[in-house]
Amino acid sequence: MAKEKKFVEEITPMEVDFAKWYTDVVKKAELIEYTGVKGCVALRPYGYAIWENIQKILDEKFKELGHENVCMPMFIPESLLNKEKEHVEGFAPEVAWVTYGGSEKLEERLCVRPTSETLFCEHYKSIVHSYRDLPKLYNQWVSVVRWEKTTRPFLRTREFWWQEGHTIHATEEEARQETLQMLDVYANFCEQQLAMPVIKGVKTEKERFAGAEDTYTVEALMHDGKALQSATSHYFGDGFARAFDIQYTDKNNTLQYPFQTSWGCSTRLVGAIIMAHGDDRGLVLPPAVAPIQVIIVPVAAHKPGVLEAAAAVEARLKPICRVKTDTSDNTPGWKFAQYEMKGVPLRLEIGPRDLAENQCVLVRRDNGEKITVSLDELEAKIPELLETVRQGLYDAAYARRAKMTFSAKNFDELKDIADNKPGFIKAMWCGDRACEEKLKEEAGVTSRCIPFEQEHIGDTCVCCGKPATKMLYWGKAY
Amino acid sequence: MAKEKKFVEEITPMEVDFAKWYTDVVKKAELIEYTGVKGCVALRPYGYAIWENIQKILDEKFKELGHENVCMPMFIPESLLNKEKEHVEGFAPEVAWVTYGGSEKLEERLCVRPTSETLFCEHYKSIVHSYRDLPKLYNQWVSVVRWEKTTRPFLRTREFWWQEGHTIHATEEEARQETLQMLDVYANFCEQQLAMPVIKGVKTEKERFAGAEDTYTVEALMHDGKALQSATSHYFGDGFARAFDIQYTDKNNTLQYPFQTSWGCSTRLVGAIIMAHGDDRGLVLPPAVAPIQVIIVPVAAHKPGVLEAAAAVEARLKPICRVKTDTSDNTPGWKFAQYEMKGVPLRLEIGPRDLAENQCVLVRRDNGEKITVSLDELEAKIPELLETVRQGLYDAAYARRAKMTFSAKNFDELKDIADNKPGFIKAMWCGDRACEEKLKEEAGVTSRCIPFEQEHIGDTCVCCGKPATKMLYWGKAY
Repeated sequence: MAKEKKFVEEITPMEVDFAKWYTDVVKKAELIEYTGVKGCVALRPYGYAIWENIQKILDEKFKELGHENVCMPMFIPESLLNKEKEHVEGFAPEVAWVTYGGSEKLEERLCVRPTSETLFCEHYKSIVHSYRDLPKLYNQWVSVVRWEKTTRPFLRTREFWWQEGHTIHATEEEARQETLQMLDVYANFCEQQLAMPVIKGVKTEKERFAGAEDTYTVEALMHDGKALQSATSHYFGDGFARAFDIQYTDKNNTLQYPFQTSWGCSTRLVGAIIMAHGDDRGLVLPPAVAPIQVIIVPVAAHKPGVLEAAAAVEARLKPICRVKTDTSDNTPGWKFAQYEMKGVPLRLEIGPRDLAENQCVLVRRDNGEKITVSLDELEAKIPELLETVRQGLYDAAYARRAKMTFSAKNFDELKDIADNKPGFIKAMWCGDRACEEKLKEEAGVTSRCIPFEQEHIGDTCVCCGKPATKMLYWGKAY
Repeated sequence: MAKEKKFVEEITPMEVDFAKWYTDVVKKAELIEYTGVKGCVALRPYGYAIWENIQKILDEKFKELGHENVCMPMFIPESLLNKEKEHVEGFAPEVAWVTYGGSEKLEERLCVRPTSETLFCEHYKSIVHSYRDLPKLYNQWVSVVRWEKTTRPFLRTREFWWQEGHTIHATEEEARQETLQMLDVYANFCEQQLAMPVIKGVKTEKERFAGAEDTYTVEALMHDGKALQSATSHYFGDGFARAFDIQYTDKNNTLQYPFQTSWGCSTRLVGAIIMAHGDDRGLVLPPAVAPIQVIIVPVAAHKPGVLEAAAAVEARLKPICRVKTDTSDNTPGWKFAQYEMKGVPLRLEIGPRDLAENQCVLVRRDNGEKITVSLDELEAKIPELLETVRQGLYDAAYARRAKMTFSAKNFDELKDIADNKPGFIKAMWCGDRACEEKLKEEAGVTSRCIPFEQEHIGDTCVCCGKPATKMLYWGKAY
């Protein structure tokens, strides 16, 4: 048992240092490895497998809704990036510039895409001519680069992996519908698959995506009370179409500007999973994206029949879940700690005594509950228990968020909460950007979103005291 | 029928101008679109879907053989690229250099990966310490950049999409086995899934990958008689391990250098499919990677029952193949031409007369054969016919290659064939690089590979007349 103990002790407890706990988990669960490229990480097999599972679920959903995958170039010529004024102002300061090809200096600098609106606009300009060409519902799975100063695995790295959907429509109504539909896809994915409750809402003008008319977001609350923007969906109106001169002829043979959207989520979601569900023993994975859903640990593996029984159980479970047996010569205790660190939702222990009773023991990663199950009932019980784990994770995260969500009626109340109670703060706002800036400077919180589900906290702005009609979520954020 | 005719006439016939035919197909089948980034293309939905199908089949096979997906950064610091001498000499002249992050000049230039051996070596150095850590069987699906002067969609673009496998092993034997195993994976995929016969062999020293001890290749023959290197698999020995100082302690606690491999294939395969199977009516897709395997075209769609029957057939076929119905108001003739252009393997025509007879007509894209099938037998007949198309494509490509493969005993014979008969030339070689260079300069052919299946064409080198033991495939290549 010495080994097990040592292993567990190596993680910094959350309460001691949350940031250190986070990087410990990321490293010890073997999700990433640092590289010689500053601010860029390597995704290791276990980390990449989580991302692959996220991709698979979302990609299927996108396609079900009529989207098609494409791939634009990774480079954007400087002149193309410059075409939409707000957009370039938002991104130019943080892009990586390619200036040489081999030993030759390029005539025009190319940036490595920080996002691909400009490339999609150029593409749409060349393929969209008539109302018959609309809508185009495209998506791509790629990595993008933003030259951040401070980086952290999954949460903010110079290169990160994401999907970016880019759609173009004949009417504003259709584009608006698409924007909200995709926000719902993300919200449902977060809540149902990642077991992570989210607040759906719209960003204030200050927090909007560069070039968007409206930016919608899903915001989740992490263990330490900080908010994490988990996905965004943008409505562009016809602003990009006008900047890039994309026009189509409608049914009456009149030239019209089309309407656009974009929407995306990234490997940040892996960071969200870690911080929404993890504990002091490591990662806790929602079953839908866990690379291993059930880990079989043979106990007293040298005793006759144990390994054979484990293999038989694995063979039976293979068609219904992602299952693995650890037959290595490490002790069961070491294995328990190892797969707890890796967040495997269910551990299945099987030893000589279990065999004698025709049963096995299942242990939930989320709350440690042990359930004895007859071997005859395995195929029915495992999916049931995986769903129980999912629901358990969701309920725990939901309860935690409820406990960490506060209301403030005036500046002093808000400042007091911001200083002493980590979490979301619900408060009214007059709509004035100056108040937003003041709250950021003086209370250290930013507006997370104007939630769709409004509540009436009071009649006046939490900051200036003027009449207010909108309730906002405020918080510290990643 | 006017529309149909016009559509077909828009493609340049192969015989008139093969290069023009190729780019016509690529554009008109909507596989790619040119972009404002010189030498870079956008993969459109239909082109990307072919690549997705390729990815899916290969990824499954890789995983079945124990490989895991990872993702390394897209940038390589100059000092890291410089660590292996031959490797840097091979790639440095054609890389894109990032020199600025935002407005700040980088202390060290970063190149956009042209291939990732150096990044994997750095990674292995940090995670491989003991024999227990070996082997690592990694793969990544990414895009890479090589600053080519002349580019062509799929065949040679500055950015292209590929997978690169990188493995590290305790012994030379294991690494050599891996290298050959992966070559077989590619060869089987090309022959069985892409219906494209390939020659398996090893490259000469001159044609070897920069830094490899041995480069294995699968070479396919295109319609115009040019060879296309379809995938490669490299054995590195311990050269990279020594250059990057990767060592592990073996079971006897002694430090050892591990052995490495890498292997890859790319979106070039889409180019290979086009040029191996296409014809003057457009693309011809092997069923395994066709985004649409069966296109249903209702005939006299306004007649009662036709659209309903088409929908019923689609519903029945959905579980067994990728099927789509074109219910647009274009004429059947236009649709026929359209889906021939897109290379859909089977067309299913259904009209009032068919309904009366409880049948439909299936038309093979590869040879135009029409088969009347009872509606009762559809589920059995479609998979059978898709397999027939695959076999038909393979047989046609095989016969074409046989007709276009020649033998030469001396320089004059070889030169005559090279000048007048497009295709492969089998000829003996003494092993001297000077002869290879002379054949390239004076006959315009390069060595494609030393095939595993050797034949005895003669006793002397086709170039210098000295004794020779190896038979090589020579040819013009993409």
